[in-house]
Amino acid sequence: CRLHVFLNYIFILTYIFGLIVGWVRSVRTQKAHIFLHVNDGSSLQSLQVVAGAELNDQLLTFGSAVEVTGILKKSPHQKQAVELEAQRIHVIGECDPVDFPFKIKERHNLEYLRQFPHLRCRTNAFSSLLRIRSEATAAFHSFFKDNGFVQIHTPVITSNDCEGAGELFQVEPSSVGDAHREFFFSVPAFLTVSGQLHLEVMSGAFSRVYTFGPTFRAENSQSRRHLAEFYMVEAELGFLRSLNDLTKVMEDMFKSTTEQVLARCVEDVDLFHRHVTPGHRASVDAMLKSSFPVMSYSEAVEILGRSTENFTFPWGCDLKTEHEKHLVKHCGNVPVFVTDYPYRLKPFYARANQDPPQNTAAAVDLLVPGVGELCGGSLREERLDVLTAHLEDAGLEDTYDWYLDLRRFGSVPHGGFGLGFERFLQCVLGVDNIKDVIPFPRYSHSCLL
Amino acid sequence: CRLHVFLNYIFILTYIFGLIVGWVRSVRTQKAHIFLHVNDGSSLQSLQVVAGAELNDQLLTFGSAVEVTGILKKSPHQKQAVELEAQRIHVIGECDPVDFPFKIKERHNLEYLRQFPHLRCRTNAFSSLLRIRSEATAAFHSFFKDNGFVQIHTPVITSNDCEGAGELFQVEPSSVGDAHREFFFSVPAFLTVSGQLHLEVMSGAFSRVYTFGPTFRAENSQSRRHLAEFYMVEAELGFLRSLNDLTKVMEDMFKSTTEQVLARCVEDVDLFHRHVTPGHRASVDAMLKSSFPVMSYSEAVEILGRSTENFTFPWGCDLKTEHEKHLVKHCGNVPVFVTDYPYRLKPFYARANQDPPQNTAAAVDLLVPGVGELCGGSLREERLDVLTAHLEDAGLEDTYDWYLDLRRFGSVPHGGFGLGFERFLQCVLGVDNIKDVIPFPRYSHSCLL
Repeated sequence: CRLHVFLNYIFILTYIFGLIVGWVRSVRTQKAHIFLHVNDGSSLQSLQVVAGAELNDQLLTFGSAVEVTGILKKSPHQKQAVELEAQRIHVIGECDPVDFPFKIKERHNLEYLRQFPHLRCRTNAFSSLLRIRSEATAAFHSFFKDNGFVQIHTPVITSNDCEGAGELFQVEPSSVGDAHREFFFSVPAFLTVSGQLHLEVMSGAFSRVYTFGPTFRAENSQSRRHLAEFYMVEAELGFLRSLNDLTKVMEDMFKSTTEQVLARCVEDVDLFHRHVTPGHRASVDAMLKSSFPVMSYSEAVEILGRSTENFTFPWGCDLKTEHEKHLVKHCGNVPVFVTDYPYRLKPFYARANQDPPQNTAAAVDLLVPGVGELCGGSLREERLDVLTAHLEDAGLEDTYDWYLDLRRFGSVPHGGFGLGFERFLQCVLGVDNIKDVIPFPRYSHSCLL
Repeated sequence: CRLHVFLNYIFILTYIFGLIVGWVRSVRTQKAHIFLHVNDGSSLQSLQVVAGAELNDQLLTFGSAVEVTGILKKSPHQKQAVELEAQRIHVIGECDPVDFPFKIKERHNLEYLRQFPHLRCRTNAFSSLLRIRSEATAAFHSFFKDNGFVQIHTPVITSNDCEGAGELFQVEPSSVGDAHREFFFSVPAFLTVSGQLHLEVMSGAFSRVYTFGPTFRAENSQSRRHLAEFYMVEAELGFLRSLNDLTKVMEDMFKSTTEQVLARCVEDVDLFHRHVTPGHRASVDAMLKSSFPVMSYSEAVEILGRSTENFTFPWGCDLKTEHEKHLVKHCGNVPVFVTDYPYRLKPFYARANQDPPQNTAAAVDLLVPGVGELCGGSLREERLDVLTAHLEDAGLEDTYDWYLDLRRFGSVPHGGFGLGFERFLQCVLGVDNIKDVIPFPRYSHSCLL
């Protein structure tokens, strides 16, 4: 009894007797008739219900839940293929229009919706977002499955502090008193900042693995690009020797998943491209048509030096948002790969290019319009001697002895990357604030529900 | 250049010139020839490599990584369809057989493997497990996608302590000193024990939603059925009025996903059913053939009372493992639904049956052979007055005011359930210990890597 099932049948049957359920999205009263739009969440499109005025009820308000019995007919209007001629309308869940924070016919902006995390899914914009997010998730899974990757559930709780980079959340049972505190796991435990090291474990047995799950940063940021809890897609490929092979997979993945989202969520994406960020569709089409340019970090430094924006950017510094934006613009507002960063900017596992005097690492970032860094990746240091020396310099050889084991036994050249899933959605939909592309955003001072 | 690509081509080409990569799983030396089995993780099956004795190398050991150039030929032996006649063998990653914890031709048990979380994926058993786990994950996603469910990423960090039940992990940034501690999120924040309440939010706009992700319990347990971090599949269905409709979805899901795993992982599953838990396949087949029996909690109490095992089980107590086992056995070792538990045993959101003097709730558990409770579900209390009264009795009306909002605005009858994904794998594969079906098990005193 769901709308989309009905809609699927419209070419087979011109009318059908049935029951439909959903929430009222609009009510229009005329002398002899009332018109409702009823939506069950399966698509942006609502079913038009036409009823005699005698079926009107003051409880038939925006947001109320109804059961309607009637006959599905070919609609006389062009707007919809079918409509339901109601014989009985039953309000199963009332909705007081005064108390309900969303008003009929009003287009609330995304910032307003954010105040109501428990109700915003009932608006057109956010229900579209959630359907798109669901399809995008499926698109990434399909891409990896079609390309022979094994999915690995890397752990959320970890005793690694990974790159030693970024602020970590620590976890302990809530009921333990502070006095005589013992660690639950016998060691300090943190929320993961990346599944990479765990994926690399798997790269010792599988040529292709990926993970797709939540990752965490305890950063005191209110930025429109950062969350304390966000989703990452991470992949690791064995027997891979060049960054070119890696960027090819990254580009394929970006395009294949974006195309799938555009193809499967036509109406929902259109809502964003028309009403939320008008004109963004052209930008997305340009990205899909382009071969993503590749430049080295050193070339990027030169481009920044030549720019009229007066960047002071000596070789060896990390790119900041304004630099990323400039590079993307320089390339014609399409995604651009920046490769071979200074070795000392990258974590211990990045593969040394051993190219003095510069000393770069075989690392790559993918910068995209509007968002900046979408992906980061690298070849991993598979050479036991190089890795050991590097970890010894950092005093980490004991902590990462297990990681050295991966190189002691059947080590292979490999590389991988991570993609910020919310940033991907921002990029495809043109949504400015990352809090508007995740069901329940978490950031400093905010953890609603 | 991956094995399974080669294997796909065998019917088109009888031989092909190429390069293969992988890890050595066995080495056999004869006078004039050496025989290797090389595996790249794409399947349990290894490719047999035949080489002249002159290509032998002492570095060709169990666990080493190799690149082999040669000609793929139809094999003269029945064991395999093709084999690679090697022209060049290059060891790209050595593996010292003395230090490597797994020995050639030895069948290490799962408990032994558990000591080496960073290496156990290199064994046949655990790489099979990981491929099965990956396929099982995909099977659940397909089931829900095919049935019109929208996937929701429910949050890991939450300010709800949900049912007030179970031990929670609390999260705070690791770098904050204990003095003058302020909460990062302004409120205490925990790791989720269930995505249900967040899914119920979505049930106010979508008829069918699900989530599949990690959940947490800070329980000091070393049991073979519990982990501190485990995966749950949870679904919520709107416009649903009877437990029958819910159990139907649960049974369909169990059967559909199990069948998909059996069909897509024939060799990998076979390894478990032959070598790890001999005879388990018959048990799985019996489950699939059976219509899952349904009994009420009250009937279960009667059955336990009549049993020869002398259970003392008064009406109103919670079922323990031994009772679950007895009920499953009583039904012929197939999955069994137990419904309508005492109201006071169930969390606040379970729908009251209002059937004095018993006072039960419309809740259901699915008990399965070997594992016990696999799923738990219920109709949710959608009636604002009943829910409010219940929350007031518990002094929780302010904490859950947002949850009451879901009933204030367009409330609909709905219900849902959760399934323990690791227990599902235990049930299908017959694996006794839950630590052997997850890549990186976390439990009290253990958080390796």
